[in-house]
Amino acid sequence: MRICVLGGDGYCGWATSLYLSKKGHQVSIVDNFSRRQWDYELGVQTLTPIQPLADRLRVWQERTGEQIQLFTGDVTDYDFLSSVLAEVRPDAIVHFAEQRSAPYSMIDRKHAVFTQVNNVVGTLNLLFAIRQWAPDCHLVKLGTMGEYGTPNIDIEEGYIRIEHNGRSDVLPYPKQPGSFYHLSKVHDSHNIMFTCKIWGMRATDLNQGVVYGTMTNETMLDEALINRFDYDDVFGTVLNRFCAQVAAGHPLTVYGRGGQTRGFLDIRDTVRCIELACMNPAKPGECRVFNQFTEQFSVLELAQMVKAGARKLGLTVHIDHLPAPRVEAEEHYYNAKHSRLLDLGLRPNYLSDSLLDSLINIAIKYRDRIDPALFVPQVKWRDSENVRTRTPPAAGASFPASAAAAIAGD
Amino acid sequence: MRICVLGGDGYCGWATSLYLSKKGHQVSIVDNFSRRQWDYELGVQTLTPIQPLADRLRVWQERTGEQIQLFTGDVTDYDFLSSVLAEVRPDAIVHFAEQRSAPYSMIDRKHAVFTQVNNVVGTLNLLFAIRQWAPDCHLVKLGTMGEYGTPNIDIEEGYIRIEHNGRSDVLPYPKQPGSFYHLSKVHDSHNIMFTCKIWGMRATDLNQGVVYGTMTNETMLDEALINRFDYDDVFGTVLNRFCAQVAAGHPLTVYGRGGQTRGFLDIRDTVRCIELACMNPAKPGECRVFNQFTEQFSVLELAQMVKAGARKLGLTVHIDHLPAPRVEAEEHYYNAKHSRLLDLGLRPNYLSDSLLDSLINIAIKYRDRIDPALFVPQVKWRDSENVRTRTPPAAGASFPASAAAAIAGD
Repeated sequence: MRICVLGGDGYCGWATSLYLSKKGHQVSIVDNFSRRQWDYELGVQTLTPIQPLADRLRVWQERTGEQIQLFTGDVTDYDFLSSVLAEVRPDAIVHFAEQRSAPYSMIDRKHAVFTQVNNVVGTLNLLFAIRQWAPDCHLVKLGTMGEYGTPNIDIEEGYIRIEHNGRSDVLPYPKQPGSFYHLSKVHDSHNIMFTCKIWGMRATDLNQGVVYGTMTNETMLDEALINRFDYDDVFGTVLNRFCAQVAAGHPLTVYGRGGQTRGFLDIRDTVRCIELACMNPAKPGECRVFNQFTEQFSVLELAQMVKAGARKLGLTVHIDHLPAPRVEAEEHYYNAKHSRLLDLGLRPNYLSDSLLDSLINIAIKYRDRIDPALFVPQVKWRDSENVRTRTPPAAGASFPASAAAAIAGD
Repeated sequence: MRICVLGGDGYCGWATSLYLSKKGHQVSIVDNFSRRQWDYELGVQTLTPIQPLADRLRVWQERTGEQIQLFTGDVTDYDFLSSVLAEVRPDAIVHFAEQRSAPYSMIDRKHAVFTQVNNVVGTLNLLFAIRQWAPDCHLVKLGTMGEYGTPNIDIEEGYIRIEHNGRSDVLPYPKQPGSFYHLSKVHDSHNIMFTCKIWGMRATDLNQGVVYGTMTNETMLDEALINRFDYDDVFGTVLNRFCAQVAAGHPLTVYGRGGQTRGFLDIRDTVRCIELACMNPAKPGECRVFNQFTEQFSVLELAQMVKAGARKLGLTVHIDHLPAPRVEAEEHYYNAKHSRLLDLGLRPNYLSDSLLDSLINIAIKYRDRIDPALFVPQVKWRDSENVRTRTPPAAGASFPASAAAAIAGD
């Protein structure tokens, strides 16, 4: 298949691009390197030393003989995006090209506006470009489990049958997103559902859980293919951060009581889920929703698993409970369905001791690159203007308003 | 109370500003005259000859002794909006300042993007400005009944109790909006609900039905205070358009079979509902939703009522069924709750023969200003690029792409 991966230089996008390329698909990456720019803005860096994309692609071709085409540009620029689709005429488009951090969206007004405009306009442009250049193309859009929030009833996959006053209908599942970022994904979901209805487009909205891990069979082929490993308080995901904390001899930072329960998955399952969605496209007019995760854990459960894993490696780890920076329930019911990708053939890589060992060992390998100041959450949901300051400020890690404004473009 | 009316030069905003001023509130209007600009863009004009806002406000003061303060600017400009709130420190803000036409949002990509960015960013800015300058201020936000779509179950006021797999929760009512404009209102609703939760803001989201009528006790004080009366295919509302068609001797244009059922209300009830919301504010942290309409009709029922009303005035009227330009169910279940404003004391002005007489007579009075070419729907939902052309083109009524681009700002 001809597959475009929008945001193919990011954490999930890079692993997905390589996996699809290895499987014989003709992969094109579209990226504007925003993700690398946000690292500069925040004064952070991935734990793993990732290479420039051009080098990554060259090494990939040397190692596998497979070529991945690169289009450098911004999906909020319609002329650019349109020219890509006109040239590639893809069978499927995997859309990762959004600002994907909840804390980033909560820094201040400019970051909230930037996140929603960037994500909503990028997706609107994509819908119109597909309509114009590849109306039969299947859109595989990354949503998030965070769109649902934590309702007191079971979470279904995108839709729910509601019985009410003696009548019944299947309706979009009610959404209670918990940040301006999560809200942007809800906005996207509604927009996509609408264009499937009016234009007969095909879409799969993948409500992904929290991804952990960094290695896939493909990224392990060469050190130059190494994937991101974000552990900072803004872009880091929780399990990766815990492993970095182990490596740095830092307590595990659990927010509040740690009862926040979420869906999780290994990045090796992310790439497989994307391929399953591509190989089994939605029908014309269908807006399908899959919940893309394999297991649920509470944050405290994860911390305890990491602590136990570290002990087996001879490392002593403490768990710190920090005041919760977010506004969210710290104890709640959570039972989210996730059978549709399993039905398509997903065989999960469940979180295992060996995976935890491997993650901790990667963190130890690169521990000289860890800045412990980045472990502390600095963006508070109840503040409307978060200025990142550290005591003492780490070199290059300050957060000047001017840099933020330049990025936010607002 | 000190009340800011954002969009106070528009159809509902103008009538609301005068009503609140007459009731003794200190009213400030914030407007950037976008609505007048869109008329220029589309080559249309209101049936009634509205005056420049400065003249309207001068006459209002001469007639009543009441002064309405004017702030000219754009709510998507945060510095401007912030300066207004810093100066006024309002007790309530009524937010009409959005692009409110479904067909306008469906013209093409630029209009879709413009509508969503304009509405979402304006509302985000407002939420942050309230947080900064008037955190106890009550936001009264205009939503639309169109957010709900036409589910096969009763429509509740914003939230619904769902029983599912033996558990129960009260969740946001599922939304199925039918245009990029309606989608923008759904995005707003989610954003507002979130800031009420994290910042303890007070908000009332008024999901308004289709408004008809033009006269209120206040606008009738002087010809210079006359309100808009839009009958064109883009900004016109259905009952007003039918009355203009009667006056022009044009058949009533029903889209499809006309079974589309919606909630309706008289503009005299709009202004009263706004005041009721202001006088009974939401509690801190509460995001309240009222469905703001008084009666439901199908479009065909309305056409038949207008036809009967015209006959009593000695006018013969035909009903034309045009191919439906929108993608919507032409026959469907519809039962929307609307008791909360009644509970607060609303006494509705139901649609009566005398109101229909009056509306038709207004249309007859100004019939020389009617351009029948504007009755024909030209924006089709299934097209992704609608170019407005007419045969023969009405003077000044063409729709050059350059003008569209200038407005859309994208």
